[in-house]
Amino acid sequence: MTDDLRERMRELCHRARGAARVVGLAPTATKNAALEAMAGELLAARQAISKANERDLRRADEAGVTAAFRDRLQLDEGRLTAMERAVREVADLPDPVGAMQGPERRPNGLLVGRMRVPLGVILIIYEARPNVTADSAALCVKAGNAVILRPGSEAFDSSAAIATAVRRGLARAGLPEDAVQLVPTTDRAAMLALLAEDELVDLAIPRGGEGLIRFVTEHARVPVVRHYKGICHLYVDDGADLQQAIDICYNAKVQRPGVCNALETLLVHRQIAGELLPPLAARLREAGVELRGDATTRTLVPGALSATEDDWHAEYLALILAIRVVDSIDQAIDHIERYGSRHTEAIATRDPGRAERFLREVDSSCVLVNASTRFNDGGELGLGAEIGISTSKIHAFGPMGLEALTTQKFVVRGEGQTRR
Amino acid sequence: MTDDLRERMRELCHRARGAARVVGLAPTATKNAALEAMAGELLAARQAISKANERDLRRADEAGVTAAFRDRLQLDEGRLTAMERAVREVADLPDPVGAMQGPERRPNGLLVGRMRVPLGVILIIYEARPNVTADSAALCVKAGNAVILRPGSEAFDSSAAIATAVRRGLARAGLPEDAVQLVPTTDRAAMLALLAEDELVDLAIPRGGEGLIRFVTEHARVPVVRHYKGICHLYVDDGADLQQAIDICYNAKVQRPGVCNALETLLVHRQIAGELLPPLAARLREAGVELRGDATTRTLVPGALSATEDDWHAEYLALILAIRVVDSIDQAIDHIERYGSRHTEAIATRDPGRAERFLREVDSSCVLVNASTRFNDGGELGLGAEIGISTSKIHAFGPMGLEALTTQKFVVRGEGQTRR
Repeated sequence: MTDDLRERMRELCHRARGAARVVGLAPTATKNAALEAMAGELLAARQAISKANERDLRRADEAGVTAAFRDRLQLDEGRLTAMERAVREVADLPDPVGAMQGPERRPNGLLVGRMRVPLGVILIIYEARPNVTADSAALCVKAGNAVILRPGSEAFDSSAAIATAVRRGLARAGLPEDAVQLVPTTDRAAMLALLAEDELVDLAIPRGGEGLIRFVTEHARVPVVRHYKGICHLYVDDGADLQQAIDICYNAKVQRPGVCNALETLLVHRQIAGELLPPLAARLREAGVELRGDATTRTLVPGALSATEDDWHAEYLALILAIRVVDSIDQAIDHIERYGSRHTEAIATRDPGRAERFLREVDSSCVLVNASTRFNDGGELGLGAEIGISTSKIHAFGPMGLEALTTQKFVVRGEGQTRR
Repeated sequence: MTDDLRERMRELCHRARGAARVVGLAPTATKNAALEAMAGELLAARQAISKANERDLRRADEAGVTAAFRDRLQLDEGRLTAMERAVREVADLPDPVGAMQGPERRPNGLLVGRMRVPLGVILIIYEARPNVTADSAALCVKAGNAVILRPGSEAFDSSAAIATAVRRGLARAGLPEDAVQLVPTTDRAAMLALLAEDELVDLAIPRGGEGLIRFVTEHARVPVVRHYKGICHLYVDDGADLQQAIDICYNAKVQRPGVCNALETLLVHRQIAGELLPPLAARLREAGVELRGDATTRTLVPGALSATEDDWHAEYLALILAIRVVDSIDQAIDHIERYGSRHTEAIATRDPGRAERFLREVDSSCVLVNASTRFNDGGELGLGAEIGISTSKIHAFGPMGLEALTTQKFVVRGEGQTRR
């Protein structure tokens, strides 16, 4: 890495710090005005953003990307509208900054409380989804932070056009433009330089595929909140409501198979397998789902493929479902402990005791009773919007909303107390 | 690093994971019984622990360590008693595990709550204080975690003897001994292997000097909560109660100068400097404090040394105080922003508006009004006990008590809801 690049990245971080100090102390109304102005500037810049997106798409086509990749990259009218609306919706969310916990009085008379404060400078590293630029900017600024955005090279032009509009919005509201900065190069060395600045960057959030997240985790000296895979499980308990279990399984697998909270492995209690699996398999197959099962499953579902050890570890993100028949809830929980990714697991049951056991004992960011795994999402769980889903337990576990972009400091009021 | 060492460390982590699952689900009474049994076994093992400590001390003497280092290492009767008492006190603290936030009902009928759960496996890396072994074991187990202890080579024998007693206590209460494991080698390669296991270790907490913390931060792939330096400031405002300000400054600097929440830099408003500094300097000098000031300070305090740029950056951990005269609270806050370490800052003032400004605007883990910086401590702030003080803002900011050794997962109860 050249010293010059390192210096330029450090300078960018220092500008972010300065801006964070202003945004961190800005009143809620000013931050909301900035978000409204961002949305307005995004609307005004639609043509420029679309042109930039066309350039990104042309490069992608020349590189011969997959249809799914091209889809993530593309910003049509509908998506531009959704992006502007998402920014306005963040303005409507409650401001977490300044909220007090306590105070409580200590025996020596000190009043000790905790005040919610912004994190400071947040680095968002992402790949091909250009709308992450606007989403992240809105969430970080609303929580009083400055954000450094590092998009993938594929989405660079679109992201830069969006960032330009967002910065114009900040300026219009009287907040420093440097509260939102786009790293001007997609050179990996620049990202590495930023990931080393642990005195200037408070948090890095990688949003993208497993490869990106591992790379960031491996190289970062700044704190990272990670989201690896979602190998999500549904366990159908003996005595579950069959129709409900089928509906939940179908929804969790089929409704949007390419996302992290989609179902990957179904565990079925032996007592209910004979009744559940044939009609469930028929319904899933109608939707084009490929089934891979253990020996018992295969006797109940003729034509199901044989599941191997690899299938229990698989995050398919596709219309494939692994199925295993288990003897008990204990065996189901053990399977999840061994193969799960701590993302999302659900149980279908009519037994309150086993529901509580599952909720308590399964070590995942979101555990559900009689509901689809697809509900592990910031919006669905009531956070309003999310900047990612953490599967590491530090700082946040599960969807990260505005509050996860803040921390608490201790505030102490005394009348001259000294320590003995 | 040899594959064999890596394999042995991974095996140790796997044992910790298995134990964490048991301890994580253990009832409060069982965990408390284990802590009482640990304290009992520590008492029973006093002779063995003392002998091990003598071996460590002998090696330290041969290596010619400083008096302060030897003091940190030494376990006399008083310290052994204090160590046993500290374990019992953790048993008396409320159990954070299982506490529910919410639930709240979503428009679709889902009940969404958050349940406090243990982190899992915690790696504590420390240096010469053998009592960290018992403290960390008690706190981690009480919060439902397994802990991997990696003491410095200087304290290895003492720490091993303490860990043996602690494990005996766990077994006596019917909990797995592997909830507390000591890394059997102080080889740095073993520590590096542990720091790479980001799927098995949930958190690493380095406790020790800046060099250790930087080394861990640099090499860890597992999440790290850091505590760098404490360059703590007191700002004495125009119109402050002079006697109170002098008492606070004296206490913060003199009462225990070698710790991270001791005062290092005093900022004084120009209007009050002439009144405050001469009597304050006299009192500090009586206690042997060396004063280093800016030009104005030196005219008011004859004989004070000249403070250089380095002094504003210094964590002396000794009887030295840097003094700067400022024109306003703004200048004081700017100085802290520029030179501070986000650890602890205090203001002495009689003006409520400026007190609130200081509390709100100063970006430190603990900000105090009219109280000594020495109160930034888990026990003093009401957390009961602390495993460290975080100056990074992720996961915890300030003293980390039992709650900081847990996280929250989302628990969702439905009646068959699927996502549209």
